[in-house]
Amino acid sequence: MASHLNLYPLNHFKMRHGGELNGAIIAFETWGELNDNKDNAILILTGLSTDSHAATHDHSHDSHETAGWWEYMLGPGKAIDTDKWFVICASSLGSCKGSTGPCSPNPSTKKPYKFTFPDLTLEDIANSSWEVVQSLGIEKLACVIGPSMGGMSSLALVLQHPNATHHMVNIAAGCHSEPFSTAIRSLQREAILKDVNFNDGNYSSEQWPTQGMKQARKMGMLSYRSAEEWKEKFPRNLRQRPHKPFGIEFPVESYLEHHAEKFVHQFDPVSYIYLSRAMDWFDACDYATHECGNPFYDINLDSALVVGARTDLLFPKSQQQELAELLTIAGCETQLEITDSIQGHDAFLVDQENYSRIIGEYLQKL
Amino acid sequence: MASHLNLYPLNHFKMRHGGELNGAIIAFETWGELNDNKDNAILILTGLSTDSHAATHDHSHDSHETAGWWEYMLGPGKAIDTDKWFVICASSLGSCKGSTGPCSPNPSTKKPYKFTFPDLTLEDIANSSWEVVQSLGIEKLACVIGPSMGGMSSLALVLQHPNATHHMVNIAAGCHSEPFSTAIRSLQREAILKDVNFNDGNYSSEQWPTQGMKQARKMGMLSYRSAEEWKEKFPRNLRQRPHKPFGIEFPVESYLEHHAEKFVHQFDPVSYIYLSRAMDWFDACDYATHECGNPFYDINLDSALVVGARTDLLFPKSQQQELAELLTIAGCETQLEITDSIQGHDAFLVDQENYSRIIGEYLQKL
Repeated sequence: MASHLNLYPLNHFKMRHGGELNGAIIAFETWGELNDNKDNAILILTGLSTDSHAATHDHSHDSHETAGWWEYMLGPGKAIDTDKWFVICASSLGSCKGSTGPCSPNPSTKKPYKFTFPDLTLEDIANSSWEVVQSLGIEKLACVIGPSMGGMSSLALVLQHPNATHHMVNIAAGCHSEPFSTAIRSLQREAILKDVNFNDGNYSSEQWPTQGMKQARKMGMLSYRSAEEWKEKFPRNLRQRPHKPFGIEFPVESYLEHHAEKFVHQFDPVSYIYLSRAMDWFDACDYATHECGNPFYDINLDSALVVGARTDLLFPKSQQQELAELLTIAGCETQLEITDSIQGHDAFLVDQENYSRIIGEYLQKL
Repeated sequence: MASHLNLYPLNHFKMRHGGELNGAIIAFETWGELNDNKDNAILILTGLSTDSHAATHDHSHDSHETAGWWEYMLGPGKAIDTDKWFVICASSLGSCKGSTGPCSPNPSTKKPYKFTFPDLTLEDIANSSWEVVQSLGIEKLACVIGPSMGGMSSLALVLQHPNATHHMVNIAAGCHSEPFSTAIRSLQREAILKDVNFNDGNYSSEQWPTQGMKQARKMGMLSYRSAEEWKEKFPRNLRQRPHKPFGIEFPVESYLEHHAEKFVHQFDPVSYIYLSRAMDWFDACDYATHECGNPFYDINLDSALVVGARTDLLFPKSQQQELAELLTIAGCETQLEITDSIQGHDAFLVDQENYSRIIGEYLQKL
C-alpha cells in the first residue's frame, strides 16, 4: 500500500494569513496514466475528515488494499474512469493524514506545531495541492472535483488560479458557510477545546480529549445525515432500558456512539479545529472585484457541474443554486443537479447510483 | 407578583414508571374569571424551559410585573382573551420553576431528590396539571393549549383522560420525538452529564456544570431556530479577529454565547435532563389499542387545531400533518395550519402576527 503514497516536499510555502512552511509534506496518491499531452488530469480535493486514499489501486484478486473513501466512484470503468483519466488526490494540508499539519513536528524545533502552526485557510489547501499538480508537469487540469470542504477548496483554487482547470465538479458545497453551519462547527470546536483533557493542545494518547472528540463527531453526524434518513433507519423511536440511568437507550444513540467511538482516535483534535475553522473562514465573495459582487467573472472555466442534495442541512440546496447561478452569470456553462437523496450532506458518499450517474455522464462528455 | 402564584399540594401522586410523590407542589397561575358553569377554562401546558408565568396579571400603568413567556398571546382582548376565558398555566412537574422536581428537597430526607426523583414522563406532567384543574372544581376544560413539549403533554392528557377537554390547540409538536430530535436531545444530555462539574448530580452553585449547560443550550438554539432565519439575521458570515485563537469571531457565535450565558443558571441541570428524556420517551402510539394503530379513537375532542411551522427542525411539519390526519381519521374535526414562519420551532414565541391570528380565530369560534 505504501508504494501508492507519494510525498511532495513543500518549501517556502507562504500561508494566506501570514507565516511560511518549510520542510512540509503533501501526501498524495494517483490513479491511471498521465497522457503525453498531460491534459487528462483530474484533481480531487477532499472533505474535512478524508485523506488521499480515495480508492484502491491494485485490483488483482489477492489484493489486501483497504477500500478508499470514494471507492465506488473512482476506478477502471467507474464514473471517474481511471482508464481514461489520470487522477490525483492529496491529503489536505493541515490534516493529520500524511500531509503536514498541526500535529506534525516543526522541522526547526522537532516538536509538534500544535497552536504554533500558522492559520490555515482553504486557499492554502488549494495552493499546496496545486503545487503538487504542477510538480507533475501538468499546466492545466482537465477537471477539479471537490465534495464538501473540497468543493469550497475547488472554488479557492479557481478563484486564485483562474486558468488552473478546464472544468469543475462542485459537490455539496457553496460560496461560503452559512451561519447555521458555522454554529454547528463552532459547537464542535467548543466541545474539543473545553474537554479537560485537551489541555491547550498538550494532550497525549493516554490523556486524549475523547469526550470532546466524540461530541464533535456526533454533532457532525447530525449535520452530515438527515432527519428523513434516520426516520427510515430507526422506524420507531424504540427504547431499551439502559444499564444505568441516562445511559444509551434509543437506537439512534447507539448509532451515534458507534460512529463517535470509531472516529475519536482517527483524527488529531488540533488538526480538526484548524480545518473546521478554515471552512468557516472561506468566502468566495472575498474575490468579488466587480461591482456586481460576482466573484467568478475572472475565472476561465469551460464548464461546471454543481451537485447538491435536497436533504443537505450543512450546505442546503439554496447554496448550490446560488453557486450555479453566479457561475452561469459569469459566463461559465453550468449544469445544476439537486438529487432527491435522503442521506443529507453525506449523499455523495452513500447514494452511489445517483452520484455515479450524474458525475459519470458529465465527465464522459468532456 | 407572588400573590399571583398558587401552590397545589400533590400527595399520593403515582408516577407512570413507578414511585409515588408526597408533599409535592405544583405551582400555577390563573388569569380571568371562572364562570358559574365552570365551562370557560383553558389549560396551557408549557414547553421544557418555560414556567407558569405565561403573561402578566396586573395591567395597571405602574405595574412592575415581569412580562410572561407568551405575553403577546394571553391577556384581555388578546388571542387567548382573558376577558372571556379563565386560563390556568402550571409549571411542569419535574421542572425547577416552582413545582417539585429533582432539585427540590425530598420531604422524607430533607435533601434534594437529584437522581432519587422517580422517572418522569409527560403523562406525569399531564396528570399533575389535571389534578390542579380538578381542584378548581372544573370537570371539563373548554380547551387545552400546548406548544412544543406542552403539545405532547396535551396528547398525554387527552389520551389518559378522554373527557378532559372539549377542544385542543396543539402547536409545534407531534405524536412522538423523531430519531433526529432524540439525537439532538441525547447530545444535550450528554454535554451536561459529562461536564466534570456535574459530579453525578452533586454540583453546587460554586461548582456548576456551566460548560455542559452552555453547550446544551447552544445545541437547543440550533434546533429551536432555523438556518433561514440566521441567514437573514447575520447576512454575511462576517468575522472579527478574536482576542485569543479559536475565541468567538462570528456573529452567530456571539449570539449563541449570549443566549447560553443567560440560560446557564436559570435551569437546574438534573431537572433539564429529566424533562429532556421525558420528551424522548413519549409516544402517543403507546395508546393505540385498535388494530389500525391510531391512538386517538377513544378520545372525545369536539375539535382540534394543529399548528406547525415550515422551518421547524425539531418537530418538522410532517409530524403536525400526521397528527392532524390521525385526529381527523379518529373522527375529530381538525384544522391544520402550517405557517411560513422562518423562526423554526420557536415561531410560536416570536411570530406574533401569525400565531395570534390563527389561535385567536380558532378560540373565537368555540
